[in-house]
Amino acid sequence: MTLPIRDDLRGLTAYGAPQLDVPVRLNTNENSYPVPDAVVEALGKALQAELRDLNRYPDRDAVALRTDLAAYLGHDLTTDQVWAANGSNEIQQQLLQAFAGPGRIALGFTPAYSMHPLLAVGTGTAWVDGYRAADFGLTAAHAVEQIERHRPDLVFLCSPNNPTGTALDPAVVTAVLDAAPGMVVVDEAYAEFARAGTPSALGVLPGNQRLVVTRTMSKAFGFAGGRLGYLAADPAVVDAVQLVRLPYHLSSLTQAAARAALAHRDALLATVEAIKEQRDRIVSVLRERGMRVADSDANFVLFQTQPDQKKSWRALLDRGVLVRDVGLPGWLRVTAGTPAETDAFLSSMESL
Amino acid sequence: MTLPIRDDLRGLTAYGAPQLDVPVRLNTNENSYPVPDAVVEALGKALQAELRDLNRYPDRDAVALRTDLAAYLGHDLTTDQVWAANGSNEIQQQLLQAFAGPGRIALGFTPAYSMHPLLAVGTGTAWVDGYRAADFGLTAAHAVEQIERHRPDLVFLCSPNNPTGTALDPAVVTAVLDAAPGMVVVDEAYAEFARAGTPSALGVLPGNQRLVVTRTMSKAFGFAGGRLGYLAADPAVVDAVQLVRLPYHLSSLTQAAARAALAHRDALLATVEAIKEQRDRIVSVLRERGMRVADSDANFVLFQTQPDQKKSWRALLDRGVLVRDVGLPGWLRVTAGTPAETDAFLSSMESL
Repeated sequence: MTLPIRDDLRGLTAYGAPQLDVPVRLNTNENSYPVPDAVVEALGKALQAELRDLNRYPDRDAVALRTDLAAYLGHDLTTDQVWAANGSNEIQQQLLQAFAGPGRIALGFTPAYSMHPLLAVGTGTAWVDGYRAADFGLTAAHAVEQIERHRPDLVFLCSPNNPTGTALDPAVVTAVLDAAPGMVVVDEAYAEFARAGTPSALGVLPGNQRLVVTRTMSKAFGFAGGRLGYLAADPAVVDAVQLVRLPYHLSSLTQAAARAALAHRDALLATVEAIKEQRDRIVSVLRERGMRVADSDANFVLFQTQPDQKKSWRALLDRGVLVRDVGLPGWLRVTAGTPAETDAFLSSMESL
Repeated sequence: MTLPIRDDLRGLTAYGAPQLDVPVRLNTNENSYPVPDAVVEALGKALQAELRDLNRYPDRDAVALRTDLAAYLGHDLTTDQVWAANGSNEIQQQLLQAFAGPGRIALGFTPAYSMHPLLAVGTGTAWVDGYRAADFGLTAAHAVEQIERHRPDLVFLCSPNNPTGTALDPAVVTAVLDAAPGMVVVDEAYAEFARAGTPSALGVLPGNQRLVVTRTMSKAFGFAGGRLGYLAADPAVVDAVQLVRLPYHLSSLTQAAARAALAHRDALLATVEAIKEQRDRIVSVLRERGMRVADSDANFVLFQTQPDQKKSWRALLDRGVLVRDVGLPGWLRVTAGTPAETDAFLSSMESL
C-alpha cells in the first residue's frame, strides 16, 4: 500500500549533500578548523552547569542567548530585535510560516541557497524561481522588475549569495524593500567572510519593519554541530515568529553552548582571516590558470568546469577531494578550508 | 504600520504556561527529580567528546541515536522504524507537514494536548475539534462516528491523554485505524507512567502502515531541557518525514546527550515508580475528600474545582503552589512530583 503523503512531496528526495568518507571534504562549507582547546574547556563547563537540571524545560524565550547575540551583532540591536532557533533553516521556516504559507508566494533569485524553495514546499508556500544575470549578478532594476511581476509575500535575498559567493549591494536591498509588498529576508549566513568594506543589511534595519536579516553560527564560528541560527529585525517580527515557534524549541544545552561560544568569539572568529586567505588564493590561482571564477565574499568559491560538471566532480572525488555539485551546468563549488586542503584541491585541479 | 502576518495567526498569542517564580511548580508536568550525579557525569563525558568537532555538521540522519531508541522501545523495532527530533512537538509538526498541511484536515478529541491544534495552524492544516464524553472518555464508536463525519487526513490520539491523564484502550486505536482514511498519530508522551497492564499502541504497529506512535524523553527520562522527541512507525513514514525535516535538525550535543541518557535509562527511569506513587496518592486523597478526579496513567492528575477554576488556581498560587489551568471550566491539572510537593499541594487544597 502507498502512504497518503502530500501530492506536492511525492517523488521528491530528501535534501542533503552526499556524506562520503573522503580525505578532503570541501562540500558543505564547514569551517575546517576544530574548536580550540580553550573554547572546548569553556563549552564543557557551560554544559556541565546545565546537566543536573535537565529535568526542567529550558527558557522558552532564550532571553540570555538573544541578549548575547544582539551584543555580538552590534548596530545598537537589542534583545527584543533578535530571535534564535536550531539553525537558520528553522529561522527561515518560522518566517515562512508566519508571513508566507498556504495561499502566499515566496520569491528567490536562483541560483541561491537551495533550501529556500524546499522550505517553501514544506510550509505550503508557492515558490517562484526568480533569476539572475548570466554572471550571477542581481541588480536593483532586475530584482524590482521580478518583484513587480510576481508580487511575492516574502522575498529571499542571499548576501553573500550561496553558491555564487558574491555579496549584495545594500542599494539592492533598499530597492527590493521599496518594491516588495511583503517581507524581505536577507540570508547572511556567510557575512563574517565578506571582503573588507562590504556592508551588512543590518545597517538597513532602522525604520524598515519588513526587513529581516538571518545569520548562523555554523560557518564563521565553526559551530555547525551546535545548530544555532538567528535573526535580527523589528520587535514585531520577533513577536510574529513566536506565534509559530515550537515551545521550548532550543534546548538548555544549545543555549548554554551557544552563549559560551559567543563569549569566546575572539578565539573562534580567529579562523575567519585564515579562511579568507585560502578563499582569495583559490580565486586568484584558478583565474591565473584562465578559469572563470565568481567573486567570493564567503568561505567557498564557485568555479567553471567542463560543460558536464558531474565529470569534473567525479574526477576530483577520484583524487580524494569532495566538492559540491550545486546543479549548475558547468560550475562546481569548493569550500575554502586549511592551507593543506587548498593545496590538495588546487593540485587535483591542475592534474585534471 | 502593521506587519503582513498571516490572517489565521493575527490576534493569537504565543503558546506557553506562565513561567512564575513559585516555591512549588506543578504546572508543566516536568519530572521533579534532578538528574542523578552518576548520569550527570556520563552526560558530561558524552558531550565533552563532541566539542572539538563542533565545526562539523552532525549526523543528518541520527542513525546511532535512532538505533538506541529502537532498542529502548523493544517490540522488535529497528532503526529504520524510528525517527527523532527536537521534542515531540517537532515530530508532530513534521507529520503534519508530510501528511496534512494546506487543503487537508486534522482531527483531535478535545480536551487533549493543546499543541496539536496550534501545530495544525502553523502548518496550514484545517483543524477539527472533536469531542469526548462528559467523563473525558473516548469510545471506539464515538471516535469512529466523528472520523466518518469529517474524513480527516490525520487523527491525533493521546494515550495517556493530556490533560485528563487516562490511557486509551488499544481497541480504540484499532477501530480508529480501520475507520480513518489517513494517518493515525498516537501521542504517548506519558506512556512510561501508565498503570500496570496498560498496553502501548506500539503493539498495534505491525501491519499498520498508517499508524505512528510518538514519544518524548522530557517526562519519564527527566530530560525536558535536552529536547528529544521521537516516533515509531513503518519505515515508509520515516522516509516521508525526511522530505520535510530540516537538514541537520538534531545537534551533535542533542544526539550525544540523548544517547548517554538512554544508556543510563535504569537510573533515570528509577523516578517513575516514585512519581506514580505520588500520582496515586493525589488521586486517592482527593477522592477521599469527595472530589471528582480523572483516572491517571500519567505524571499528573486532573481534578474538579469550584465552577470558576481560575479562582482555585489563584488561591493555590497564593499558597505558593503553581498548577495548570488548561481552560477546562471547573477543572485544574496538577503534576505529580516529590512527596514534599504532594504534601504542599494536598495541604493547600485542604485549606481552600
